[in-house]
Amino acid sequence: MFGAKKFVENSMKDIRKIVGDRRVISACSGGVDSTVTTVLVHKAVGDKLVAVFIDDGLRREGEPQFVVKTLKSLGIKTKFIDAKAEFFAALKGKADAEEKRKAFRDKFYKTLGKAAREEQIEFIAQGTIKADVIETVGGIKSQHNVLEQIGINPEVYGYKILEPLKELFKPDVRKVARELGLPKEISERMPFPGPALSLRVLGEVTPEKIAVVRKATEIVEEETKKLGTFQNFAVLHNDKATGIKKGKRVYGNIVTVRIVDSQDAVTAKARQVPYEVLMRISERITGEIPSVVRCLYDITDKPPSTIEFE
Amino acid sequence: MFGAKKFVENSMKDIRKIVGDRRVISACSGGVDSTVTTVLVHKAVGDKLVAVFIDDGLRREGEPQFVVKTLKSLGIKTKFIDAKAEFFAALKGKADAEEKRKAFRDKFYKTLGKAAREEQIEFIAQGTIKADVIETVGGIKSQHNVLEQIGINPEVYGYKILEPLKELFKPDVRKVARELGLPKEISERMPFPGPALSLRVLGEVTPEKIAVVRKATEIVEEETKKLGTFQNFAVLHNDKATGIKKGKRVYGNIVTVRIVDSQDAVTAKARQVPYEVLMRISERITGEIPSVVRCLYDITDKPPSTIEFE
Repeated sequence: MFGAKKFVENSMKDIRKIVGDRRVISACSGGVDSTVTTVLVHKAVGDKLVAVFIDDGLRREGEPQFVVKTLKSLGIKTKFIDAKAEFFAALKGKADAEEKRKAFRDKFYKTLGKAAREEQIEFIAQGTIKADVIETVGGIKSQHNVLEQIGINPEVYGYKILEPLKELFKPDVRKVARELGLPKEISERMPFPGPALSLRVLGEVTPEKIAVVRKATEIVEEETKKLGTFQNFAVLHNDKATGIKKGKRVYGNIVTVRIVDSQDAVTAKARQVPYEVLMRISERITGEIPSVVRCLYDITDKPPSTIEFE
Repeated sequence: MFGAKKFVENSMKDIRKIVGDRRVISACSGGVDSTVTTVLVHKAVGDKLVAVFIDDGLRREGEPQFVVKTLKSLGIKTKFIDAKAEFFAALKGKADAEEKRKAFRDKFYKTLGKAAREEQIEFIAQGTIKADVIETVGGIKSQHNVLEQIGINPEVYGYKILEPLKELFKPDVRKVARELGLPKEISERMPFPGPALSLRVLGEVTPEKIAVVRKATEIVEEETKKLGTFQNFAVLHNDKATGIKKGKRVYGNIVTVRIVDSQDAVTAKARQVPYEVLMRISERITGEIPSVVRCLYDITDKPPSTIEFE
């Protein structure tokens, strides 16, 4: 049995010992992993921690505001970095999923490394969890926060890495969040990938496509709040399809809705969502987003699919 | 009220009057429209009709054999044309839906025109129905068998057109099929587009992709026989997605399943198929087709979608 209280105590001791009187930066995306990491380190070293929120332009509706507000309400020194233009420039022209992940990762570490140097900070705290490590080693997917595994030398970016949650699976991370007294919106928050909505636009990422998938994501999240599923999201295809809008033929966008149950993201089941809910989602997505003519529902478990499309 | 018996009588008179003692060719794809047309003309002019089955390589599993067998069993003179290589060559490099339709149409009429000239035939009978005419005029979709509407001059291809079903909607065509005593497999047959599986491969069409969508179509048809829906089919995406096969990460194909209820194809409803059936389809498609890692279900009505994707 995992003991969250014991884990917090031990972590704090470890973090204090490693960090000493040096300073730490923590990139907080607002997900449960990075927020727990940030709060844990803050509890251990207080104002020697600076939390950073990087606005990469790929976040969900209202997310940047929410994260910064939450961190400040917890008394954590927080820095907001607007890097939208740089991320879109880095992603431009890249259609391949793995190339997109690499471009995101590279831009992410460069941005964070730059902030760390500006603040003369030596440590970067990261919300890596056990599933990230397993998946990257198995060659399933290269998570952007598992540096050693993929041969990225942190020294190149100018800092050392602190990963206090590396041995934990998702349910235990949530227990730690509750132990730390974090609000339910954080402790029970759905997983959201590091490269964010860029993985939910198949093919090349542009600000216009991100706006479409952001709106579709908002609709899916609104309509599935009560389902209690592990992860609910929307994906914008690169493929297009014919449709009819205002009586005229159009060649428009396709959006897929994915709703899964899972314990730890290692395996997952497509939720058998009532059609009433699915049809409302389909009507809203095609009705509220002018470019979308078709809405699909993912009926594949993991395996053989992954949860995300990329 | 539409009277099928009266319609057959009048059609036969009309066809005899127009054709006189000249000869007719009829391209029969095996669908209800072209088969009814073929049988009607055969009834009217007997051996002055030659039925032609063009094997474009884009048909469903077992379809070429089934169609030729059926026509011969009805005592109709039948010519089989193997044009697989020519059709794939014509479609090569074309990713745009409308370009693909045009390439198909052009190759279709050239092939048919050539056969007509070889047989010294003046008339081509076609299974155009009312919905094709309406949709093409409305600019919704260019059906391959509505020449006048789209400004193709049949003279260019060397023949005159005979369209006995032009004023009929689908339910009436089925009534005529029953009146003509055609087997249930024909009279109740699902609609299938002229350009066949080429419209169900998004992006460029290749023999390999057609083989994937053909197998997926077979699985969907097998598993949905009892549903009594208007149309059930599979679509192969050009987009790819990550998945896991035999414990390894792969970047594989996506297949969408579309199952709709409709009276006349002008509007349609996505059928709310029991999840038990959908999950079996998903498991079979990802299990029996090595390249497919993900299966989606289309939850959009027409409008705003069309029934087909292209």
